[in-house]
Amino acid sequence: MKPEKTGENSRRSFLKNASMAGASVLTLSGLDRAGAMPSEYIIPKADPKRYGSAGLPITATFLDEISHDIPHQNWGKEEWERDFQHMRSIGIDTVILIRSGYRKFLTYPSDYLVSRGCYKPHTDLLELFLSLAEKYHMNFYFGLYDSGAYWDTGDLTHEIESNRYVIDEVWRKYGERFSSFKGWYLSGEISRKTKGAITSFYELGKQCKAVSSGLPTFISPWIDGKKAVAAASGNLSKKESVSVEEHEREWDEIFDGIHKVVDAVAFQDGHIDYDQLDDFFTVNKKLADKYGMKCWTNAETFDRDMPIKFLPIKFEKLRLKLEAAKRAGYDKAITFEFSHFMSPQSAYLQAGHLYNRYREYFGI
Amino acid sequence: MKPEKTGENSRRSFLKNASMAGASVLTLSGLDRAGAMPSEYIIPKADPKRYGSAGLPITATFLDEISHDIPHQNWGKEEWERDFQHMRSIGIDTVILIRSGYRKFLTYPSDYLVSRGCYKPHTDLLELFLSLAEKYHMNFYFGLYDSGAYWDTGDLTHEIESNRYVIDEVWRKYGERFSSFKGWYLSGEISRKTKGAITSFYELGKQCKAVSSGLPTFISPWIDGKKAVAAASGNLSKKESVSVEEHEREWDEIFDGIHKVVDAVAFQDGHIDYDQLDDFFTVNKKLADKYGMKCWTNAETFDRDMPIKFLPIKFEKLRLKLEAAKRAGYDKAITFEFSHFMSPQSAYLQAGHLYNRYREYFGI
Amino acid sequence: MKPEKTGENSRRSFLKNASMAGASVLTLSGLDRAGAMPSEYIIPKADPKRYGSAGLPITATFLDEISHDIPHQNWGKEEWERDFQHMRSIGIDTVILIRSGYRKFLTYPSDYLVSRGCYKPHTDLLELFLSLAEKYHMNFYFGLYDSGAYWDTGDLTHEIESNRYVIDEVWRKYGERFSSFKGWYLSGEISRKTKGAITSFYELGKQCKAVSSGLPTFISPWIDGKKAVAAASGNLSKKESVSVEEHEREWDEIFDGIHKVVDAVAFQDGHIDYDQLDDFFTVNKKLADKYGMKCWTNAETFDRDMPIKFLPIKFEKLRLKLEAAKRAGYDKAITFEFSHFMSPQSAYLQAGHLYNRYREYFGI
Repeated sequence: MKPEKTGENSRRSFLKNASMAGASVLTLSGLDRAGAMPSEYIIPKADPKRYGSAGLPITATFLDEISHDIPHQNWGKEEWERDFQHMRSIGIDTVILIRSGYRKFLTYPSDYLVSRGCYKPHTDLLELFLSLAEKYHMNFYFGLYDSGAYWDTGDLTHEIESNRYVIDEVWRKYGERFSSFKGWYLSGEISRKTKGAITSFYELGKQCKAVSSGLPTFISPWIDGKKAVAAASGNLSKKESVSVEEHEREWDEIFDGIHKVVDAVAFQDGHIDYDQLDDFFTVNKKLADKYGMKCWTNAETFDRDMPIKFLPIKFEKLRLKLEAAKRAGYDKAITFEFSHFMSPQSAYLQAGHLYNRYREYFGI
Repeated sequence: MKPEKTGENSRRSFLKNASMAGASVLTLSGLDRAGAMPSEYIIPKADPKRYGSAGLPITATFLDEISHDIPHQNWGKEEWERDFQHMRSIGIDTVILIRSGYRKFLTYPSDYLVSRGCYKPHTDLLELFLSLAEKYHMNFYFGLYDSGAYWDTGDLTHEIESNRYVIDEVWRKYGERFSSFKGWYLSGEISRKTKGAITSFYELGKQCKAVSSGLPTFISPWIDGKKAVAAASGNLSKKESVSVEEHEREWDEIFDGIHKVVDAVAFQDGHIDYDQLDDFFTVNKKLADKYGMKCWTNAETFDRDMPIKFLPIKFEKLRLKLEAAKRAGYDKAITFEFSHFMSPQSAYLQAGHLYNRYREYFGI
Repeated sequence: MKPEKTGENSRRSFLKNASMAGASVLTLSGLDRAGAMPSEYIIPKADPKRYGSAGLPITATFLDEISHDIPHQNWGKEEWERDFQHMRSIGIDTVILIRSGYRKFLTYPSDYLVSRGCYKPHTDLLELFLSLAEKYHMNFYFGLYDSGAYWDTGDLTHEIESNRYVIDEVWRKYGERFSSFKGWYLSGEISRKTKGAITSFYELGKQCKAVSSGLPTFISPWIDGKKAVAAASGNLSKKESVSVEEHEREWDEIFDGIHKVVDAVAFQDGHIDYDQLDDFFTVNKKLADKYGMKCWTNAETFDRDMPIKFLPIKFEKLRLKLEAAKRAGYDKAITFEFSHFMSPQSAYLQAGHLYNRYREYFGI
């Protein structure tokens, strides 16, 4: 049944010979890495000289403590230090604590929050992260406390009260002590219809800046796209999602209300489809420019399209998102997040391979 | 109630010395393990001298064969033996077969169950576990057969009939042969409203004791708390959950009916919130004392709060649960389970880190 | 509480002594591999001499690019080459690209599909796989493009149009160049009630054969059994499922319509219960024989019974399925799929253990 394939005989012979000739030189644990194997990268790589000519490189990551929906890795100090080294080696210069506490769990022994019923942690992760950031010359952003009340009620103003104390306490105990403390992350994960978003971000941003002589602040909201579904639900997408026009109109209003105290916006890039990236990114950049804010992308390194919620993203998807961010003229790419989804020491071994694919693409 | 453990002193000294001797080996690719890094443990550690002064140490684990809802690791004899060694090294002295069979899958080649349509297994895990328990001086508890009928109908009495034969067969073939066969686990996973629970546990417990000259028996029910949802469901919690008062009233009745043939109760600790632990644990201990039963905790080492069902728990959550068990005066902590969620060789790499955090806390 | 066990003392002493005596001889990294440990395989192993006397060996695997619902491993060329070596070492002689593209993602830079809005990939996986198949003397089957329209509409005829171009393009660019290009996989994953199945398979099969001088084609449908539920749903099974009689009647009609251009059928084996395997497999073989088609089994190596969708299957379940395929006189076993669920380098470490258990059973 198999037909003769007389057509390409000479090429095939050539390839086979090349393969044999190269075998001794190119063996990697017995693997022939060149030989007959195809080797071309068939789209433009990001040029390391011009750093990010094809895709915007990731230069910041969240630190997912306290985790909301990603299982904990149970790392100790050694693993965290090693991870900062891995981050550093691909050009990450900024780390962002995703939140300093979530409901009753804390990253640091806050006198205020413990007095309000939170559990006293056994180690001070905040101090560890600030120390590591200092040691590895990275900028640290502090993520505000999340009481959970917003997730339960949909009203972000619940988060103002406790954070008044947290901001003061943290700046007094850590901010003045660590030169790596370089900014604030207003950790409310909102989208367009979040009640109290403008008031809350404005109040919190104002206070952060007031105590810290104006250190920068940023937010990382989600676009209300087709993949904006609850992590614990069985679904991957929903029917009703926001149009680009609605998105623009609604965020124009939000930015108008907060831009005086919020320096950058980093929309999460995972809730829309890949062919919607350009449309939404263009609007995001236009709005940020209009209000004098920096426009970052939160390049999610986990995959929203799979039944297991969540494992590392396919590199090609990440690449498409970083290229869209580059085309839209974004200022910086941050990721959620390196340690689970991109680190060579992640419990998800796919992450280490993503790290390698990322390095190949950026020539690192 | 906690017995002196003078026996193990020399072993522990040996381990400490070995650990010090090995210290230079542990330095890790250029990491500064001290330097500017914060190093204090900011809550009381469990004191190894008083073993469990702050948290109750885990001294027993289930062996999750046959697995109900945790994907199988496909271990062979070597991996199992190595795991028993890992268990031993953190003080686990007891292993409990979660169930000897589940529907048509079996851990051992039961003539009776194979004749009733179950699949003949290719290895005899029961014999392997009993042998390993004997070799490593551990106590083995045999978990009864689970036909699945209870899960389908909600009526536990379905499990009495087949287990009459299983209990006899197992004691005859294994119980009299292995000195490590030290007790029975009545494997019905019930909660308060389980039909036929009292009858079933009473009948099964009575028979177990009758054939084995009174070897101890125990049960491990779940508290009908807010996290008591089906593993395969998309939800993490439910609205309606039991109050402490209802829990006490209902379990008083159950214990009254079974205490003559059930020696210990090990409530699963994962279905209630962390700040409910003390209330429920206090009641559990009170009831156990009232009926002369031992009060154990089944300290779950997987995380019920995450969309992936299930991966290893965050150490801090485990710590909170073990500390609550200690405060309540519990007699023993068992876990579900070591091999997936706490073992250095688990397919879930987070488990190995949990193992390390656990050892740090208990000074092992 | 523990009674004396005077009964079997002499035997137990013997075992202990045997164990000690054997300890120094049999140490494997400190493990006693024999001693008192049970070692018999208590069912017939597949005899390597007669290759598959008890179970049908797996000699083919899908390559899950582009992945539909299994998270991506982000492998590069090295990992793929190593995986082909692993496949080879257990007797796999055939690899099948699951699909050449899925919606907008592609395995190769198809001019046609890119012109229709698909994303140009950065590497040519098709070329890589064909090269590796050639190098390791394996047969490669090409899986047709899947536009996603069938999944959205339930009508498979949507897939005819674009594949007309894909089949021509692929044969011209790759088929004539690689001697490893040995067949076609008609990638529509249908079951009995799929609209347009006969027309589509007939048209596509006919064209594949026409361009390639009759290279073989196959399909891999699913049986509409109790586990036929959506991967992203929270459920593991459904109430309504097909009877053996309906299955036979409906597939008789489908085979009648397609057998002239479809050479083999490889039903997925995971949607029915283990004790239904013989009934369905018998019918499948009878129908395939009736129409002169080869009857393969698609032995799924992931577990459909667990809340995490999906991780590697328990070896015993795989064994039961391969034994049923052997009993039914099936011609070949293929698997979905080696690289995630059975490979020693899979990100799921359970896969490597499955690989070892598989090798033990087949004496490889």
